[in-house]
Amino acid sequence: METPDNATEAPASTRIADQDWATASAEPQYRAAVVDLLGALAYGELAAFERLAEDAKLAPTLADKAELAKMASAEFHHFERLTDRLTAIEVEPTGAMEPFAKALDDFHRQTAPSDWLEGLVKAYVGDSIASDFYREVAARLDSDTRSLVLAVLDDTGHGNFAVEKVRAAIEADPRLGGRLALWARRLMGEALSQAQRVVADRDALSTMLVGGVADGFDLAEVGRMFSRITEAHTKRMAALGLAA
Amino acid sequence: METPDNATEAPASTRIADQDWATASAEPQYRAAVVDLLGALAYGELAAFERLAEDAKLAPTLADKAELAKMASAEFHHFERLTDRLTAIEVEPTGAMEPFAKALDDFHRQTAPSDWLEGLVKAYVGDSIASDFYREVAARLDSDTRSLVLAVLDDTGHGNFAVEKVRAAIEADPRLGGRLALWARRLMGEALSQAQRVVADRDALSTMLVGGVADGFDLAEVGRMFSRITEAHTKRMAALGLAA
Repeated sequence: METPDNATEAPASTRIADQDWATASAEPQYRAAVVDLLGALAYGELAAFERLAEDAKLAPTLADKAELAKMASAEFHHFERLTDRLTAIEVEPTGAMEPFAKALDDFHRQTAPSDWLEGLVKAYVGDSIASDFYREVAARLDSDTRSLVLAVLDDTGHGNFAVEKVRAAIEADPRLGGRLALWARRLMGEALSQAQRVVADRDALSTMLVGGVADGFDLAEVGRMFSRITEAHTKRMAALGLAA
Repeated sequence: METPDNATEAPASTRIADQDWATASAEPQYRAAVVDLLGALAYGELAAFERLAEDAKLAPTLADKAELAKMASAEFHHFERLTDRLTAIEVEPTGAMEPFAKALDDFHRQTAPSDWLEGLVKAYVGDSIASDFYREVAARLDSDTRSLVLAVLDDTGHGNFAVEKVRAAIEADPRLGGRLALWARRLMGEALSQAQRVVADRDALSTMLVGGVADGFDLAEVGRMFSRITEAHTKRMAALGLAA
């Protein structure tokens, strides 16, 4: 692994991606970063479950309620896959999640939807940002962790239900667009501000995100990642009829 | 089917149990009863999902919260199996559920737990009564509907988590026992009173429960069913350290 030959042949940024968990986790900082990542994602899924289940109460019809409950249940299964993985690598899931509880709880507390449509926009925005982030971060992971993250990612996209409902509501009453656009902006702002807090607090995780562990990413790369996610969000909001 | 021969050979009470759905559902009243049953169970599962997800917020630890979320998610899957079945027999699930929404919503509104332990006792009592009822009703169903009901039943029993927690809490503070015993009694009382309302309102369902469709059960049999469920509840509460 450490022959000069290998070091020159493989671009630095693909080294971890070419390793499996057993090899990559020998580096304690990489291990700590993955534990952080899985803990943050797991708590994120659990918190999303709670909020979606809560928002289901705002549903105008039984069918709508069932759809939101379905999204909530999908989030819970992501949570289970992530915590199962933590257990498999001999990490107690609760301990891995706790450092991220406050940021995610704060995010949800500060973005409690005041009605059904705000809840739908939040479900869609949350689902989409999560997908984008999973996709971005997958490239930085060893093959085993990447498989898990992509498997969880593959199962998202329940947000389409939300898109249809929101688009129909705006068509029926175009004034809604302005309020919901503001709301989507607030969601993204809160998400970024909590994400920055997490990045500042968690050394191992941030180092992995900026590619500090035997990788070629520089600090600017994290900025670019956030910016790609924000751009994708803006495009989605426009497609939804909301100027973001 | 209507030869005198057949009528004398098979005991009346087993006739439907020996039929599959295609045969049994030719009788419109039986069909209506099963639609009612599946609709009531489906809404019950959706309502249970909502309440458990809500109660998860009262959890003292992250691990406890995850356990309650797991129970909620299991209820959601039961909901899906039941509504999938309604769709498969060409019944719109929402329409089948709506007649039962008020009774179940009223039950949950009147039994909102005021703390974590009350929530656990409710989860356990609800899970157990549901299991008992599924088991009782299974015997009255055609083979296809019975398989579904037993499959859903097989997947319950998440209540053991609640049992452990409640028992430990009562051991630590025996005075809790009195309050929680009262609470369990109130839950059972409310459940029975809503169940009676449903039975009074839904002719096809009640007729099936009393065995009115080509079956040998008499009216007293429903009374005995409720009484068996209540007795089982009493035993469980005693085992839990609660005099019911």
